[in-house]
Amino acid sequence: MIETLEHGDVLELRLQRPPVNALDAGLIRALRESVEAAPGKGARALVLSGAPGMFSAGLDVPSLLQLDRKAILAVWDDFFALMGALARSPLPVCAAITGHSPAGGAVMAIFCDYRVMADGEYQIGLNEVQVGLAVPEPIVRGLGRLVGPYRAERLLVSGTLLGPRDARDVGLVDELTPTGDVTGRALEWCRELLALPGEAMEQTRARARADLAAIFDHLGPKDLESFADAWFSDQTQATLKALVARLGKKRDA
Amino acid sequence: MIETLEHGDVLELRLQRPPVNALDAGLIRALRESVEAAPGKGARALVLSGAPGMFSAGLDVPSLLQLDRKAILAVWDDFFALMGALARSPLPVCAAITGHSPAGGAVMAIFCDYRVMADGEYQIGLNEVQVGLAVPEPIVRGLGRLVGPYRAERLLVSGTLLGPRDARDVGLVDELTPTGDVTGRALEWCRELLALPGEAMEQTRARARADLAAIFDHLGPKDLESFADAWFSDQTQATLKALVARLGKKRDA
Amino acid sequence: MIETLEHGDVLELRLQRPPVNALDAGLIRALRESVEAAPGKGARALVLSGAPGMFSAGLDVPSLLQLDRKAILAVWDDFFALMGALARSPLPVCAAITGHSPAGGAVMAIFCDYRVMADGEYQIGLNEVQVGLAVPEPIVRGLGRLVGPYRAERLLVSGTLLGPRDARDVGLVDELTPTGDVTGRALEWCRELLALPGEAMEQTRARARADLAAIFDHLGPKDLESFADAWFSDQTQATLKALVARLGKKRDA
Repeated sequence: MIETLEHGDVLELRLQRPPVNALDAGLIRALRESVEAAPGKGARALVLSGAPGMFSAGLDVPSLLQLDRKAILAVWDDFFALMGALARSPLPVCAAITGHSPAGGAVMAIFCDYRVMADGEYQIGLNEVQVGLAVPEPIVRGLGRLVGPYRAERLLVSGTLLGPRDARDVGLVDELTPTGDVTGRALEWCRELLALPGEAMEQTRARARADLAAIFDHLGPKDLESFADAWFSDQTQATLKALVARLGKKRDA
Repeated sequence: MIETLEHGDVLELRLQRPPVNALDAGLIRALRESVEAAPGKGARALVLSGAPGMFSAGLDVPSLLQLDRKAILAVWDDFFALMGALARSPLPVCAAITGHSPAGGAVMAIFCDYRVMADGEYQIGLNEVQVGLAVPEPIVRGLGRLVGPYRAERLLVSGTLLGPRDARDVGLVDELTPTGDVTGRALEWCRELLALPGEAMEQTRARARADLAAIFDHLGPKDLESFADAWFSDQTQATLKALVARLGKKRDA
Repeated sequence: MIETLEHGDVLELRLQRPPVNALDAGLIRALRESVEAAPGKGARALVLSGAPGMFSAGLDVPSLLQLDRKAILAVWDDFFALMGALARSPLPVCAAITGHSPAGGAVMAIFCDYRVMADGEYQIGLNEVQVGLAVPEPIVRGLGRLVGPYRAERLLVSGTLLGPRDARDVGLVDELTPTGDVTGRALEWCRELLALPGEAMEQTRARARADLAAIFDHLGPKDLESFADAWFSDQTQATLKALVARLGKKRDA
């Protein structure tokens, strides 16, 4: 589900779970493990990429709706660990947002070092509220660090999706390129960073990202339970099932 | 002094203390009680509005100058409680800034969820320093959350008033409309929020505003005493009395 | 090395260490002492200025490379104290950035109240990483307060230098003037501030800058040791020596 490509010092983790790189239990676990394992494999920087036109559609809701509370807790433990692994990564991580990137797709991106996005008819954003999911606190704080706490409040409460240019203007992504150039530009960005005096860059990077890493210092079982409570509430379940029904009709049409 | 209008789920609290909706002891108390009572009355969102051309001129300095220290402490206790009630409101609150909104008018607005302002020859801003009043810490932090801590420092220290477009550009207000449309747009904004999946919106909103609410967690008697000390300092009293003299001449002219 | 000029209430501290106002042990000590002593001399505001075209080239690396660990610790103790004295100054301080202002030059500027920069072919920025130096935490936080924590991360990790207009757009400087007008405009900015009701301005200023001052509350010996460790690392020494060699060739050319 993840293609691993070595580009010299830079390791590319390419999501490969057609058709939309939806995040099910297995892909979330695989991503967590890949990000956590990368420093031990000799990589000096990471690129997290998707398919042309589709970075990731976010959580695989139809699949996750099959899971019981224990399994949901395990998935969410992995997803928090994935966010934390990106936020705390000793290696710089560039998100190559190759296309659509709603909800879980955007969540991964905001904890990376830098975001290059395809300049096309794509959407990115934290639209969790639109599909009935409350946004967990680490995501509130991670987005707030990028765009400011008030701008984050507005985007999160309304669950707004943005086109690439609006996303760049608000600070949700850093740079736009043609769709075919996203991963190439992300690799180049990593190489530029790696060309700097290494110790100085690494220590400065660690200090500048200490506030982002600290978001994950006190995350515990109650955050997981809180997510599971919200997931299994009647209203969330009804909204998610209506979403799945719409997706099914769209697919069958 | 406050007209209460029901628009379905949305309750409008309209300041109605001619000629300029100046905040005296009674209006501050009434506002505090109205905001605190709104959730118990079945409202799902609030709009705080003023008169066309005049949201609120801020504190009623001539009236407050008559008060002794004990009375000033009580007024300021109410005003801090009003700010806190807005910042912690379980209901979304939209400020319908129907016109001028200096000092106390702007203070109320910054603790609301969203600010729609009339696009005309009006001014908004925290001009307390210009009239000799030191800005209390909760206001420093509330404005800093909207516009960033450094931008807030500059605006507060100089006591700058801004026109609607500059206010929007700096992030002090969110949206401009013609003067006659402000309250209508504020109602619409509330309805858009209320149309979202309720639990997800409410939980996300609470998390995204937790830092704003936290400003009021440790406010205590010493903050009130500090305000009263500043209020009764010779310099502040002289500046306020000069202001009142200027206002009197303007009114008599 | 510092020319002190009295302009009524406003004291100008003009760096005068030709050719580039490089910060060696003596100048850093003199700056610290001058900023700390200013309130006792009856000044009500400070301007920190340089030479036309050159505010300060930053640390005097060739000179500092001669020092042993104990001497480096003393220099850095002074430099942290200088930053802290600017951040906590009871007097407003305006940086008159009269020209180039890389690294240490920019460091001094970010802890001042306001930054006026010469609009010419100059550069400003925290390019420490480019020359092999890790950026200490107070500088990370000071820049983050001006431009936001994420924007600071990007600028610091890459060690980017900016022209005056980009620096203004990102929030690193506040205002541009022709090169010859920088100090005059800085004096004027101070006078505008001093014309405001004094107690209100001072109390508001202290509250609005409390977060900046707090950066220096817990700075201690381990921060100094950490800087010295980085300074004497093989990689940093090699990068600094290569820099000095390049500077020497440039000078000789």
